[in-house]
Amino acid sequence: MKKLINDVHDVVAESLAGFGRAHADLVRVSHDPRFVSRADGPVRGKVGLVSGGGSGHEPLHAGFVGKGMLDAAVPGEVFTSPTPLPIVEATKAADGGAGVLHIVKNYTGDVLNFETAAELAGAEGISVRAVVTNDDVAVQDSLYTAGRRGVAGTVLVEKIAGAAAERGDDLDAVTAVAERVNANVRSIGLALTDGTVPHAGEPGFVLPEDQIEFGVGIHGEPGRERIAIEPADRLVDRMMDAILTDLPFSSGDSVLLFVNGMGGTPLSELYILFRRAAEILDERGIVLSRSLIGDYVTSLEMQGASLSLLKLDGELTALWDAPVRTAALRWGL
Amino acid sequence: MKKLINDVHDVVAESLAGFGRAHADLVRVSHDPRFVSRADGPVRGKVGLVSGGGSGHEPLHAGFVGKGMLDAAVPGEVFTSPTPLPIVEATKAADGGAGVLHIVKNYTGDVLNFETAAELAGAEGISVRAVVTNDDVAVQDSLYTAGRRGVAGTVLVEKIAGAAAERGDDLDAVTAVAERVNANVRSIGLALTDGTVPHAGEPGFVLPEDQIEFGVGIHGEPGRERIAIEPADRLVDRMMDAILTDLPFSSGDSVLLFVNGMGGTPLSELYILFRRAAEILDERGIVLSRSLIGDYVTSLEMQGASLSLLKLDGELTALWDAPVRTAALRWGL
Repeated sequence: MKKLINDVHDVVAESLAGFGRAHADLVRVSHDPRFVSRADGPVRGKVGLVSGGGSGHEPLHAGFVGKGMLDAAVPGEVFTSPTPLPIVEATKAADGGAGVLHIVKNYTGDVLNFETAAELAGAEGISVRAVVTNDDVAVQDSLYTAGRRGVAGTVLVEKIAGAAAERGDDLDAVTAVAERVNANVRSIGLALTDGTVPHAGEPGFVLPEDQIEFGVGIHGEPGRERIAIEPADRLVDRMMDAILTDLPFSSGDSVLLFVNGMGGTPLSELYILFRRAAEILDERGIVLSRSLIGDYVTSLEMQGASLSLLKLDGELTALWDAPVRTAALRWGL
Repeated sequence: MKKLINDVHDVVAESLAGFGRAHADLVRVSHDPRFVSRADGPVRGKVGLVSGGGSGHEPLHAGFVGKGMLDAAVPGEVFTSPTPLPIVEATKAADGGAGVLHIVKNYTGDVLNFETAAELAGAEGISVRAVVTNDDVAVQDSLYTAGRRGVAGTVLVEKIAGAAAERGDDLDAVTAVAERVNANVRSIGLALTDGTVPHAGEPGFVLPEDQIEFGVGIHGEPGRERIAIEPADRLVDRMMDAILTDLPFSSGDSVLLFVNGMGGTPLSELYILFRRAAEILDERGIVLSRSLIGDYVTSLEMQGASLSLLKLDGELTALWDAPVRTAALRWGL
């Protein structure tokens, strides 16, 4: 294993220390318990948004803390859920008196720990709601999940619900927006290579030179099947077919297309995927209205990508366009 | 070789097609000759900024076309300089009547082709100046370069000179700003693994599991030496020592610290490097005033990183902070 790290036990702490130093204008980092919160938070009268989960998916979630998106993020150890205590503290740090929404990717550990934290925070007088994201169409149950997994679509939930909170929506309304985004987004991923968890020291799987994992999870969990690698356009055809038929998306729909890199994929390849996905939308009469391309929900240095498609309406589009200022996503500010 | 591509000959064209589609609000893509220009360009009365070079370093340079930065970018084939013709056409597309500055990384092919293009554009009545970036302290001469190589510091030249052009500086003044940035920035990189050029089909070099290339170039060119991998902090110590002693940077200086990923490095590792580099600045009494962390000048899917340090003054800081709106760098707009 070759990595730019020091002791494997210090990876998350040292990375967060650097993150906090680099973005001191945006965030505060608490190391014990471990969470990241808005430098100017909590914002009085605004619904607070908190997300979290295992580390190794950077910039998710700490990279999305800031005006117009998350109020706090709770990073666990690599690919390991944070415990309830730091989630409770992050919830307090996010609470401006209007309640807090937890945005939780559907992994059993995350769901349980956020539920416990919500109860504890509730006992301290904070109104907490939760939305569990489950946008991955690849498989029904998986290594760490009962039901569908929450993957890259979570970023879209965080951005759009964050904008709803920023404009002053109350807790019910912000929760409803987050649920609406989750209900309208579908994703699928694939991997050419797996990343290496530092304390494991070797990749979770090694594929032959001509094979890929189709439908892979963001922890390298098995997907639908291992298949021979094909030209990128054929892989996109497969991915789009899985997504489009699931919601389903129909002619005349307006969509946001999100091509997400898994950490080790050249940006140029993400645009090759985007090009073909956009062609497919054209062929089906689906309107490509907004897009996002880059490494937003990664799996360490995995080579691979995911496609996400979100069905938009006027309100979701306006909330997507609203200004945001975080370390990893920024416009209008 | 596993890549998310179709025919190896179509990689650049297809990637640019996707880029143009995704960012149609920012850029126009010309495919023959191949260049990218501002969707709202040329801007009358503004000095035009053009950069370019081999592809494979995305988002450099097309990702930096837009308000407050470049007016046009000229991508060659992967790791191959563009020919003069597209550079001439990009120069015309960038010319708003106030002249054009070429920002050229110091590689022999790029320098020659931009020089020829400048003569041809000059013969058509466009005033062209050039700044050749050479921020890499690793080696004096290299595989494709006489003198020092132009690497990640080029992004800082493009951002700051772009802001000078946007505020209305004339060609002499914009050129002087670009030269001042280049004179005050120093960089060095290292690689754990090399990327694979699509038409080559295999990495340029393969290192043993315990070795790194210290001082690597952005095409995988040899650096200073191959050394055994060390903890990240010790590698940063070596890198910072090479940079700090070169300008030299001194106690009381104000600097921008840029940690650049080479394409295949987890973002979390870049923050680990940033953390130690910032500590070293603290120890030396150098003021960390601005920062940039992410994949901006890549070498395909190379695992590795570079550090750049720019000595700031009040004017350069203000130009850095000025609004910018490009696909890869955006704030205030």
